[in-house]
Amino acid sequence: MKFTLRSRAVVEFGGTAFLLMAVVGSGIMAERLAAGNVALALLANSIATGAALVALILALGPISGAHFNPAVTLADAMQGGIAWSEVPFYIAMQIGGAFGGVAAAHLMFGLPIFFASHHARSGKAQIGSEFIATFGLLAVIWGCARARSSFVSFAVGAYIAAAYWFMSSTSFANPAVVLARAASDTFAGIRPVDAPAFIAAQLAAALTAVVCFRWFAGETTEPKL
Amino acid sequence: MKFTLRSRAVVEFGGTAFLLMAVVGSGIMAERLAAGNVALALLANSIATGAALVALILALGPISGAHFNPAVTLADAMQGGIAWSEVPFYIAMQIGGAFGGVAAAHLMFGLPIFFASHHARSGKAQIGSEFIATFGLLAVIWGCARARSSFVSFAVGAYIAAAYWFMSSTSFANPAVVLARAASDTFAGIRPVDAPAFIAAQLAAALTAVVCFRWFAGETTEPKL
Amino acid sequence: MKFTLRSRAVVEFGGTAFLLMAVVGSGIMAERLAAGNVALALLANSIATGAALVALILALGPISGAHFNPAVTLADAMQGGIAWSEVPFYIAMQIGGAFGGVAAAHLMFGLPIFFASHHARSGKAQIGSEFIATFGLLAVIWGCARARSSFVSFAVGAYIAAAYWFMSSTSFANPAVVLARAASDTFAGIRPVDAPAFIAAQLAAALTAVVCFRWFAGETTEPKL
Amino acid sequence: MKFTLRSRAVVEFGGTAFLLMAVVGSGIMAERLAAGNVALALLANSIATGAALVALILALGPISGAHFNPAVTLADAMQGGIAWSEVPFYIAMQIGGAFGGVAAAHLMFGLPIFFASHHARSGKAQIGSEFIATFGLLAVIWGCARARSSFVSFAVGAYIAAAYWFMSSTSFANPAVVLARAASDTFAGIRPVDAPAFIAAQLAAALTAVVCFRWFAGETTEPKL
Repeated sequence: MKFTLRSRAVVEFGGTAFLLMAVVGSGIMAERLAAGNVALALLANSIATGAALVALILALGPISGAHFNPAVTLADAMQGGIAWSEVPFYIAMQIGGAFGGVAAAHLMFGLPIFFASHHARSGKAQIGSEFIATFGLLAVIWGCARARSSFVSFAVGAYIAAAYWFMSSTSFANPAVVLARAASDTFAGIRPVDAPAFIAAQLAAALTAVVCFRWFAGETTEPKL
Repeated sequence: MKFTLRSRAVVEFGGTAFLLMAVVGSGIMAERLAAGNVALALLANSIATGAALVALILALGPISGAHFNPAVTLADAMQGGIAWSEVPFYIAMQIGGAFGGVAAAHLMFGLPIFFASHHARSGKAQIGSEFIATFGLLAVIWGCARARSSFVSFAVGAYIAAAYWFMSSTSFANPAVVLARAASDTFAGIRPVDAPAFIAAQLAAALTAVVCFRWFAGETTEPKL
Repeated sequence: MKFTLRSRAVVEFGGTAFLLMAVVGSGIMAERLAAGNVALALLANSIATGAALVALILALGPISGAHFNPAVTLADAMQGGIAWSEVPFYIAMQIGGAFGGVAAAHLMFGLPIFFASHHARSGKAQIGSEFIATFGLLAVIWGCARARSSFVSFAVGAYIAAAYWFMSSTSFANPAVVLARAASDTFAGIRPVDAPAFIAAQLAAALTAVVCFRWFAGETTEPKL
Repeated sequence: MKFTLRSRAVVEFGGTAFLLMAVVGSGIMAERLAAGNVALALLANSIATGAALVALILALGPISGAHFNPAVTLADAMQGGIAWSEVPFYIAMQIGGAFGGVAAAHLMFGLPIFFASHHARSGKAQIGSEFIATFGLLAVIWGCARARSSFVSFAVGAYIAAAYWFMSSTSFANPAVVLARAASDTFAGIRPVDAPAFIAAQLAAALTAVVCFRWFAGETTEPKL
């Protein structure tokens, strides 16, 4: 069963909104309750984000593909998974949904709708870590989508929950997420001035990942008996 | 294999009772042990609740559908999933089971069977957050039930564990749970005076969700070859 | 493919030994590292136990059924799942494996092989909680085994991780585990004098659960078209 | 679909690199944020490692088998799962990937590329615990691979997350991981002088495990009707 572009775009908007609510909202709640222990706050933030991804991708994947991420949509289009003509709709809805989710999280926690982040995230180490994080995310999706598509939700949720911890940037890995988190001066924020480098690293990683996937496609042999 | 209404009602009673034991009991245990760190208590409370939902829905879903939630039962009836004549039995057993579970949790931890909560949970932000939380829960169930019913337990457990963190209300999303938690002056309680607004928001969300699902049902196209 | 009784008994021994290593070992490690915060220690202990159960039941379930628990074996025999003539071998290996696992955990952490616990766990509330915990465990296994046997590992792991928090007894739910933990004066221990009441409650719960399952078996209707 | 040795070797390199990034990187992040609470740091470290394993094995298992571990590759070769001629390539790439991952983690967190660990891990108890941990890991893989191969990722991730807690060595269970962590003077490090005994215990466990698996292969009976 295939859904209309209109309804798939709605799902990309809503899914990305819930993803950002989870990322930003759980960051606010965790920081408020953690009494200054940042490890505890990040543990709650990473588990909530990973669990939300599992739920959202399981529920919405069969409708829109559950990209919620312009880097994923671009990589998918480069591999022929989605028509290029649909890409602008997907990305616009992802960015709109991301800001909508941040606004909803702020309102739920009694904060301004948007307020620019002062959370500095810069330097070669963090930008390189965004490259690796995004490359890894796309590899995980590609690997699962090839052979075990019903498990892609678990793989993505687990990967992001882990990558919050092992990437020095805490793994944004999603240009729409970067833009919207720049408008949130909370635990999960990122300074607007730091956003372009993160996004550039993510797009470069997406391109690199697709080149790798194409190389792999030529490396299969006839199945042995 | 289909079970009699009587046995399905028993399962709704028992499943909801275990769910409330998990919610209220783990809240009591966590608060007692957490030495004042609320983030740590909520982390234990959210993991225990999510894990209990996974187990209960996996085990009991094939018998009764594992609603454990009047909002889910009403949305299911509106979509033709359960006969309207069975709805009162389901809801009565869910509410009865919820109070039974709270009573059991209290007895296990040496507390009065019931005692009204003094935990204030009110204001537009929290009521709006109940609307969003319930809408999201129903969307997750609807999305999974359509295409991946064996994974609905994981999706619901993950969603609720996450929503404890990213909703300022900590995500009740269940009228039976609201009523029963009003009778528990513990970590997970809610003042009786705050309960009606929570329940109204949840029912409004259920209605809104069903309208959305109907719109989606008209948005499918013929499958492409 | 069916395995010999001999090899299944070996698996019950080894699986129960690893389960007890996980329960007791993670309790020791968690208490040593948690700097007095019992909630944090129990969080680690519950996650480690639940995760170990997922791994052990996934791996060994296809061989022996992965009972690791005399209450489960007895309930299975009452329902015709295992021959009564095999029950003594299963239970003996489970008890032996449980003590073996406790001894291994103690040796790994530089403690005496066995030393009687001084951890008091008694009173009506805790004994009642063992009844409920064991009943719930058997219901979860029965529900999954009927319809979703490949998910039973996730259901059991999730249930036990949750029940550590919402049962005032922290949910032993396993007579072999009670016996072996009485020989461990560590975080997870139980005084030998408290063991008989726990075991009695567990066996009573197993009997009650089987009566309930039989009632359910008569409550099915012809499938609707 | 079968992939060329070249592409499978690339996957073993990349997967092992990500695994080590997860292990070492999350250890660095967790220790920096945990304000001295080692239990909290180990909780984050174990969850991140387990989640990363789930994602990596789900995504890359269908290509290379997702060994990421010389002990697994050797055990697989002894059982005829991989040709002996391919073993040196697998192991070389695993060791190379492990060092690559440690280097990447260090660079992301602003540390030297390599610096020898001062973290003492020695003594009979810890070496015995590596034997048990590796034996258990291989048993989990063998059990799942026989009957439930799509779940092997969950079983391995859950097992390792648990074993971090219940093995006094925190469960390395992987010779490539031992070598690379010796080059990291961080939370997850191990002194180079302690590495050989760990590796010897792991290889002995792999050999023992294969002997056990062969015994089991002779213990099947004709299926009963």
